[in-house]
Amino acid sequence: MSVSAAELSAMARARELGMGVLGTTSPNPAVGAVVLAADGTPVGEGATAPPGGPHAEVRALAQAGERARGGTAVVTLEPCAHTGRTGPCTEALIAAGVARVVVAVPEPTQLAGGGAARLRAAGIEVELGVEQQAAEEGALGAWLTGVREHRPFVVWKVAGTLDGRVAAADGSSRWVTGPEARAAVHRLRATCDAVVVGSGTALADDPQLTVRDAELPPTHPAAARQPLRVVLDRRGRLPGTARVLDDAAPTLVSVAAGPQELLEELFARDVRRVLLEGGPTLAAAFLREGLVDEAVVHLAPKLLGAGAPLVGDLGITGIGDALTLSVVGLTRLGGDVEIRLRPNRHTGDRRVADHRGATGGS
Amino acid sequence: MSVSAAELSAMARARELGMGVLGTTSPNPAVGAVVLAADGTPVGEGATAPPGGPHAEVRALAQAGERARGGTAVVTLEPCAHTGRTGPCTEALIAAGVARVVVAVPEPTQLAGGGAARLRAAGIEVELGVEQQAAEEGALGAWLTGVREHRPFVVWKVAGTLDGRVAAADGSSRWVTGPEARAAVHRLRATCDAVVVGSGTALADDPQLTVRDAELPPTHPAAARQPLRVVLDRRGRLPGTARVLDDAAPTLVSVAAGPQELLEELFARDVRRVLLEGGPTLAAAFLREGLVDEAVVHLAPKLLGAGAPLVGDLGITGIGDALTLSVVGLTRLGGDVEIRLRPNRHTGDRRVADHRGATGGS
Repeated sequence: MSVSAAELSAMARARELGMGVLGTTSPNPAVGAVVLAADGTPVGEGATAPPGGPHAEVRALAQAGERARGGTAVVTLEPCAHTGRTGPCTEALIAAGVARVVVAVPEPTQLAGGGAARLRAAGIEVELGVEQQAAEEGALGAWLTGVREHRPFVVWKVAGTLDGRVAAADGSSRWVTGPEARAAVHRLRATCDAVVVGSGTALADDPQLTVRDAELPPTHPAAARQPLRVVLDRRGRLPGTARVLDDAAPTLVSVAAGPQELLEELFARDVRRVLLEGGPTLAAAFLREGLVDEAVVHLAPKLLGAGAPLVGDLGITGIGDALTLSVVGLTRLGGDVEIRLRPNRHTGDRRVADHRGATGGS
Repeated sequence: MSVSAAELSAMARARELGMGVLGTTSPNPAVGAVVLAADGTPVGEGATAPPGGPHAEVRALAQAGERARGGTAVVTLEPCAHTGRTGPCTEALIAAGVARVVVAVPEPTQLAGGGAARLRAAGIEVELGVEQQAAEEGALGAWLTGVREHRPFVVWKVAGTLDGRVAAADGSSRWVTGPEARAAVHRLRATCDAVVVGSGTALADDPQLTVRDAELPPTHPAAARQPLRVVLDRRGRLPGTARVLDDAAPTLVSVAAGPQELLEELFARDVRRVLLEGGPTLAAAFLREGLVDEAVVHLAPKLLGAGAPLVGDLGITGIGDALTLSVVGLTRLGGDVEIRLRPNRHTGDRRVADHRGATGGS
């Protein structure tokens, strides 16, 4: 495999473009694409539009126009060869006259697959698997989890003190973290299709669970939408006056028996990326079932010495049985610390699906 | 005040030299000094030797020899003008013929003070207060706390999980953190005069509390010494077979009534920098009395969901009363995270002492 520096740089930009539309494309993947002219100059870029809109390659090609001819398309996911709500991307690439297509992640489903073969049959050079892992761990992660496990990708967000308390002894928790960390939570919500809490959190904190202060440009696709608000409320405890039931965003009150059933319900509603913002009990339930894919922990440099813990009982008694994660990001948010982690063990189903319904395609 | 780039660079090096001997100079301050020749070239450097040995300036001047003449001495603490166990540094600077002395921290005690005045009287230009804060927050912090509050500086070190547990439900805690974090604790111990635990920790973990694997060069002054091991054991619970009583290092079993009394006892033994490695109860006692000056928190990316907390009851009920700190350092240690913090509130006595006994002088 031979990839030029210009192509690698374009791939990094394509991943960035995909991240930029994360949370606005489900159930479709958040793909990024860059078109390079024959001399390697970037002449077009694009990312997946909201469902029903054009795919990333088509937008990048439209921007490039005639300059795409003889050039290279760099894209995070293998272009689709099937006709869904939009025409196949392979035909758009062939029509634009590109000489080469560089792809990070090969299409994992049979329905949308065959893109590379179709392009090669048309005389186009195709490179597959270029910096595949970075793309898989980036904007495509949520969609790939859906393809492989038929459930949404779950990001667990929690804000606590240095000594692992999410609230003080008297239950007060406003505000554990500072404004920068809280703004980061709003940006994080904007990348998700749904925000989940338990009825306990809805009762205790009465949160609105909308995206605010995310500082998105008004033209950004996420600026015009709100993630689905979800309250797991098996016992019907949520009062009709709860803020989460206001008309600022759609809300689902679920009576699912547990995390697994809730995620199935959300998957059926085309949710591919969930932000779990529930309290210690709900977080523990997801963690026990291996249903957390990423953790975003905001730690305030405070000590309380008492109060509700970051996470409830996990059924762990010895240090050797601790649930272990890997730190994938460490940064300061104002006076607070953000630690991003991925669990090391995963009890979920990793089988690759052999179909994905009518929603796929990049 | 006019300070050259060469002098600022020399001051940064002087601070580094002071840090390098932290834990080996008490009750004297850990001072660093660099001598620049008349043309600004560094020609000598030194740091405080163990008590009874030469001070930083004297060592730096010895290395510089004749090249010090007409040059500049850059030093983290104002040179002493009094004769303690060693002769006054001012006279050594005058004899060496330096034209200029650049100082970070003015001498805070009357006994050793007057150094700048003595130098100026001899026709030497003196700049005081150059990057003073950096020096005060660095190697001189412990000694300054002693001068101002007549007690040792306390570094609280704690290793826990992401959810604030120092041990699992069954009490097991070996090992919460990985080898890199544990090695960092040994390096930290080497910078302290004493390591303090409560009898609870001594009984539960039976630690040896010595400096091991600190990767110090054999010629380093800390390589040949061990900090004083201190067990606060009011109830006489420590068994004679405890490892902390072996002959690997000196040990003090204290029956002090609490942190304040213990620190007085240690101060009288010339301890200026204490590493608090006790469990949640002892840590809480120090924190409640405002007797923690720095916290070094090692967080393992693990979740336990139960077990002993990072810190015991602090008497705090509401989030607004949380003990707040500021993050001064954030780094990864292998797979773990190190957060260094300084408390924002301080109930300690900040009055400046007007004398400091016969031990001072840089």
